[in-house]
Amino acid sequence: MSAYETLKSRFARLATIGEAQAMLGWDASVMMPPGGGAARGDQLATLAGIAHQMLCAAEIGDLLAAAEAAPPADGWDSANLALMRHAHTRATALPTDLVEAQSRANSACEKIWRDARAKSDFSLVRTALAEVVRLTREAAAALSPALGLTPYDALMDGFQRGIGVADVAPIFTAYEAFLAEALPRALEIEAALPPAIRPERPFPAATQEALCRRLSAQVGLDYAHARLDRSAHPFSGGTPTDVRITTRYDENDFTQSLLGVLHETGHAMYERGLPEAHARQPVGEAAGMAAHESQSLIVEMQAVRSDAFLSFVAPQLRAAFGGPETVWTPDNLARLWRRVKPGFIRVDADEMTYPAHIILRFRLEQALIGGDLAVADLPGAWNDGFAALLGLTPPDDARGCLQDIHWYDGAFGYFPSYSLGAMAAAQLMAAARRAVPGIDAALARGDFAPLQSWLRARVHSQGSRLGFNALLTEATGKPLDPADFTAHLTARYLA
Amino acid sequence: MSAYETLKSRFARLATIGEAQAMLGWDASVMMPPGGGAARGDQLATLAGIAHQMLCAAEIGDLLAAAEAAPPADGWDSANLALMRHAHTRATALPTDLVEAQSRANSACEKIWRDARAKSDFSLVRTALAEVVRLTREAAAALSPALGLTPYDALMDGFQRGIGVADVAPIFTAYEAFLAEALPRALEIEAALPPAIRPERPFPAATQEALCRRLSAQVGLDYAHARLDRSAHPFSGGTPTDVRITTRYDENDFTQSLLGVLHETGHAMYERGLPEAHARQPVGEAAGMAAHESQSLIVEMQAVRSDAFLSFVAPQLRAAFGGPETVWTPDNLARLWRRVKPGFIRVDADEMTYPAHIILRFRLEQALIGGDLAVADLPGAWNDGFAALLGLTPPDDARGCLQDIHWYDGAFGYFPSYSLGAMAAAQLMAAARRAVPGIDAALARGDFAPLQSWLRARVHSQGSRLGFNALLTEATGKPLDPADFTAHLTARYLA
Repeated sequence: MSAYETLKSRFARLATIGEAQAMLGWDASVMMPPGGGAARGDQLATLAGIAHQMLCAAEIGDLLAAAEAAPPADGWDSANLALMRHAHTRATALPTDLVEAQSRANSACEKIWRDARAKSDFSLVRTALAEVVRLTREAAAALSPALGLTPYDALMDGFQRGIGVADVAPIFTAYEAFLAEALPRALEIEAALPPAIRPERPFPAATQEALCRRLSAQVGLDYAHARLDRSAHPFSGGTPTDVRITTRYDENDFTQSLLGVLHETGHAMYERGLPEAHARQPVGEAAGMAAHESQSLIVEMQAVRSDAFLSFVAPQLRAAFGGPETVWTPDNLARLWRRVKPGFIRVDADEMTYPAHIILRFRLEQALIGGDLAVADLPGAWNDGFAALLGLTPPDDARGCLQDIHWYDGAFGYFPSYSLGAMAAAQLMAAARRAVPGIDAALARGDFAPLQSWLRARVHSQGSRLGFNALLTEATGKPLDPADFTAHLTARYLA
Repeated sequence: MSAYETLKSRFARLATIGEAQAMLGWDASVMMPPGGGAARGDQLATLAGIAHQMLCAAEIGDLLAAAEAAPPADGWDSANLALMRHAHTRATALPTDLVEAQSRANSACEKIWRDARAKSDFSLVRTALAEVVRLTREAAAALSPALGLTPYDALMDGFQRGIGVADVAPIFTAYEAFLAEALPRALEIEAALPPAIRPERPFPAATQEALCRRLSAQVGLDYAHARLDRSAHPFSGGTPTDVRITTRYDENDFTQSLLGVLHETGHAMYERGLPEAHARQPVGEAAGMAAHESQSLIVEMQAVRSDAFLSFVAPQLRAAFGGPETVWTPDNLARLWRRVKPGFIRVDADEMTYPAHIILRFRLEQALIGGDLAVADLPGAWNDGFAALLGLTPPDDARGCLQDIHWYDGAFGYFPSYSLGAMAAAQLMAAARRAVPGIDAALARGDFAPLQSWLRARVHSQGSRLGFNALLTEATGKPLDPADFTAHLTARYLA
């Protein structure tokens, strides 16, 4: 067997262990009784340790050197080999002691954060977060020379390979300028519209669930390879042949579950459409977190909130929930689901103000990792930055720097992916509309097949063969270009 | 760290991987969509391979030798060390090629068996079963010298360590004689009783489920550490801090789910009661399959079907399902749940005829493994043996040698555990009644605490410190003695 073939079998084994971890992680969030938590932590840590050991093994380094000396001719294989090298480099750059210390510190901090957020008291978690930041900076410093990236870029690279501050900062600066002009106009236009009519509650959970299941299947999700369950925090997990999406049902609000499930369905469709021929190889994986978010948002924000789909779904909702016809018109749904309203909480934000939440976090985490911002000064810096971006001052830290789990769990460099994904979704949707006539006519019939077929061909089936910008260039003719996103917002909110 | 301490950490890691396997196995039977099956097979095979490699590692052999040279003084530790040696011996006795060939052959045969059973056509599975038997004989031959046991005893040892043909054969011969006399008498007595009144269907699945949940909690199951779900074939799985039991609901019959759940609850209580101080060590595990079955049957057969508990549960059932009071009397419940009736299917058998099903399989599998019975002759031998034991000839192979999965999945030597468990359950119940006054008075109040406390002290918390007979001797004053079982049957069915 060639060195490359041997590597493929090693990485397939690693990916299979990763699948087991994914399933155990899903179970922990969805099924596990509370008493199973301690043992589950050990199970996941043991599998992570085994996988890390396998990935860092000297044998892998030797095989990589041998394979690189006679690189495979095929484009998929050479991309795969480069990704294997990348994974090995990232894994071996971090001393095992540091990885374990981070794991312990993140886990401890995340627990304290839950309490601090509930009490809206940053001081409770300050020390724990400082330790997380200290270790993250140490990790970034170790990754930096190995990857030839700045420390913060090395962290970003862990979520969306090849994307760094130089790519993102100018895009965010331009968006800030767009928002300063667009937001007041959007609010003015909105104020002139007739007020949205709220449908009458309650919305029985069983009805919501049936609707979520039916519409996610309509997007294309095949329940022979998927499950829909309930969890406190909605997510998409599992493996490409067994995707698991979750939501929660609030009988006073069906929007959260329905749009949430369709969002997770977009993630799930990506996993389902990954190239089977490269399953369990690095090149067969999704192209990164920004690419992943583009697939959830192209469903949730672009397709589902389009005029075309609203005209399809309005009578479906009326049939499900009943009530007067005036509530279930596409126009009223648009006023309910396409509403710009600045607020403190990222996960509740509309698509126009959402990037402001990200820009704030992007700047603050650079300062934290760069050492320019002390953890103790975070609440103040947060509130100042938020006021500058959206003109509002958070009334407390629960609605400020304590709202998101990410930093408290050690995830720095992740946030930009959300807005890169939103922008890529707009760009892909525009390209799909140009390439496939009748996408909107199909959505008006509830038919996602033309859109999903195009996405499958241009995005899902490409796996990680291409970097984020190369993927977009092959699919849309250009690298990430926020103009499609601002054009989308302009058409939707400023027309 | 001493050699023994190092071994403990290695075995803890192995056990943790085993927990991951248990959870993934549970998920495959209870949650997984059909499309996830192929990947799940790979995940389980990968973890099994990793665990096998760890257990067989030369390092383990060296550590065992070092630890045995300076054996630990503590009884638990020395038992633990002996069990480590035993596990290593069993694992290393089998060549990896053979283990893999068995895994493939068992899996292939089991699939074919499903079809053969559905069509009641043994010829479909004959070749696949012959291969399974051939490989099992090869494995038994490899285990035999390593363990110093006959080949068939080496297989039995895999399910209930230390128990072999010499222990079981005389017990079964004596039981056969008992049954020849007792069965006609039991049937005669039963025929003279007023006929059982069947409660009116349907029994809504949700009502059954709520009842199962409530009564299993009453047995002692703590749902902070447990789940109850549905699966095609009921089982008990998971881990000691996160036990997972399953059942299925038939709206025409609540008995199957209710008694099934209480049976699985007995298994779950055993896992929950294992010694925490020895968690993830061989000595902290359950003492074997016969010991396990004793704990499910002491709940299902001894306690739940006792006069005392029937008097408690009858009004509960009436409250749940409604209908005339005459149906829900303890006497009528006894006539429904304590009925001797020879039949073809093991899993439907009453407690008196059940051992006949086991005796047949015990004799036939010895002949198959010993080479005295060809696979092609199995259906005939089965039918002859069944007729000799219970006076009935199976009308087809689906109700004969095709009914159970065990052999078709490569499990030979397992069957005796069921009846050893039933006998041990009677012996433990008799000892508990002697040791703890008021057990039946408590059961009449629906209170399992006195019985379960005694079982926890005498059985569950003992882990695998003792062999099956030593465990019974410490708990009841004597090794396995079928006299308690026949006395129980005599009191219940022949009085």
